[in-house]
Amino acid sequence: MCQLLGMNCNTPTDIVFSFEGFRLRGGLTDSHADGFGIAFFEGKGVRLYHDDAPSASSPVADLIKTYQIKSENVIAHIRKATQGETALANTHPFMRELWGEYWVFAHNGNLRGFHPAVGQYYRPVGNTDSEKAFCHILEQLRQTFDTKPDEQTLTAHINVLVKDIRNYGLFNFLMSNGDMMFAHATTLLHYIVRQAPFGEAVLLDDDINIDFSAVTTPNDRVAVIATLPLTTNEKWQQLAVNELVCFREGKVIYSDAPEPKQYLNIEEGLKIARSVGAAGCSSSSNKP
Amino acid sequence: MCQLLGMNCNTPTDIVFSFEGFRLRGGLTDSHADGFGIAFFEGKGVRLYHDDAPSASSPVADLIKTYQIKSENVIAHIRKATQGETALANTHPFMRELWGEYWVFAHNGNLRGFHPAVGQYYRPVGNTDSEKAFCHILEQLRQTFDTKPDEQTLTAHINVLVKDIRNYGLFNFLMSNGDMMFAHATTLLHYIVRQAPFGEAVLLDDDINIDFSAVTTPNDRVAVIATLPLTTNEKWQQLAVNELVCFREGKVIYSDAPEPKQYLNIEEGLKIARSVGAAGCSSSSNKP
Repeated sequence: MCQLLGMNCNTPTDIVFSFEGFRLRGGLTDSHADGFGIAFFEGKGVRLYHDDAPSASSPVADLIKTYQIKSENVIAHIRKATQGETALANTHPFMRELWGEYWVFAHNGNLRGFHPAVGQYYRPVGNTDSEKAFCHILEQLRQTFDTKPDEQTLTAHINVLVKDIRNYGLFNFLMSNGDMMFAHATTLLHYIVRQAPFGEAVLLDDDINIDFSAVTTPNDRVAVIATLPLTTNEKWQQLAVNELVCFREGKVIYSDAPEPKQYLNIEEGLKIARSVGAAGCSSSSNKP
Repeated sequence: MCQLLGMNCNTPTDIVFSFEGFRLRGGLTDSHADGFGIAFFEGKGVRLYHDDAPSASSPVADLIKTYQIKSENVIAHIRKATQGETALANTHPFMRELWGEYWVFAHNGNLRGFHPAVGQYYRPVGNTDSEKAFCHILEQLRQTFDTKPDEQTLTAHINVLVKDIRNYGLFNFLMSNGDMMFAHATTLLHYIVRQAPFGEAVLLDDDINIDFSAVTTPNDRVAVIATLPLTTNEKWQQLAVNELVCFREGKVIYSDAPEPKQYLNIEEGLKIARSVGAAGCSSSSNKP
């Protein structure tokens, strides 16, 4: 299974601590060794780094560590390829422009028989079901709204689109326009909101800890979203099965999940991911 | 004035030699110290690196040197800001998807009073005239052709669009879809096609030389395009004023320039660039 990492904050924050634990899963503490990608919003602009080297040993990942880029919205993806080529065009996150904003999307899952019509506004470049799903979401939004609608309308509309797409299979994803961060779980996705009073956090994947109170101000609020919790001593909130959550400025501003809420335990979630053939990560083509 | 660097080849080639000379103009041998960007096509995918640090000292540029990415199409841009903010959203090259392909564009120049209508398919994210011009080209292509036309039709159509846009000012640019590389000069742009028998080249901006015969095969063909020649011992071909050239597989496949051809000498070209207010590089907003 691939893994997702996202961050949404109310002040530009560097993701190095979380990314350090996350990247080790790309070839060291776990086996997602088939490349990675990370997108940092900086104002309306995006720094987008892709690499087909394992994130644990990638020089691009080393750069991210040393450069300490500060961003209010970050989406990262590490990949375990199971079928198809590891072409750069198939590497998450994907990026497109909509309504004069960049939108970024990364997916962990596998959609079967998902063949939306060729878009008028958005067409995939690679051959993954992930990029197809992203283009389909943007296409439907653009066809419906010539300019960006208000937040409530936009969120409700995305929720309707997501409910349709998830009928095709595993659809864990992160999507951001540099302002809002959408997170949806079919199986596993967890988040934590860090805010004052800040404490210490200890990474699960490495012998590193950090005292957030030393590197934050009392007003900072940072939401970190990850497939699996990254720290051992904090309480991560799990997304329910088929829950869509939207974050802004480090805060949950919207969530919707079928009642009664169902939560997979991690073993169950990983088992489902492994059982769907593509091991829950499709960067490969989705042939009928 | 900003500077442009492009490469178009018939086999994946690393641009490190040319980039090493070019990047030194970003803060060391010349004063284009306000960030840089570089895009490498890899198949249909693109690695896109932007940085607001001067290219001469940027860790992102260091990464490019050490990583030796091989690509058939590369576009790089170093920037000297003269007005407006150096926001990441205004950093060249810009990228969009058209007909299921990524297109990449970088501009050295300044367009005055250029205000195309809001696009149906493409809208700028930043506030540069450069991104406006790029979006306008793609918008007109997409409005005219639902799918990619044949090469001749496409090239002729782009030529018509370029002839219109250059009425608004300095429009030196490079644009590629990972297959073709378009280069247009209002003032200064030079290129060289390196092919067998390969010889030695000596960088103008650094004490480096390279024997291409040791790092190539007899079938390799590499076109390098740059604002100013990068080497001292090779004969660079200058683009005429208002000449559009298209390269594929390291070869010129199309060119069009008004007759009689006019060639600016470098001093003249630099003087014109300096005299247009934005010193020939607009990464700033273009207010009426």
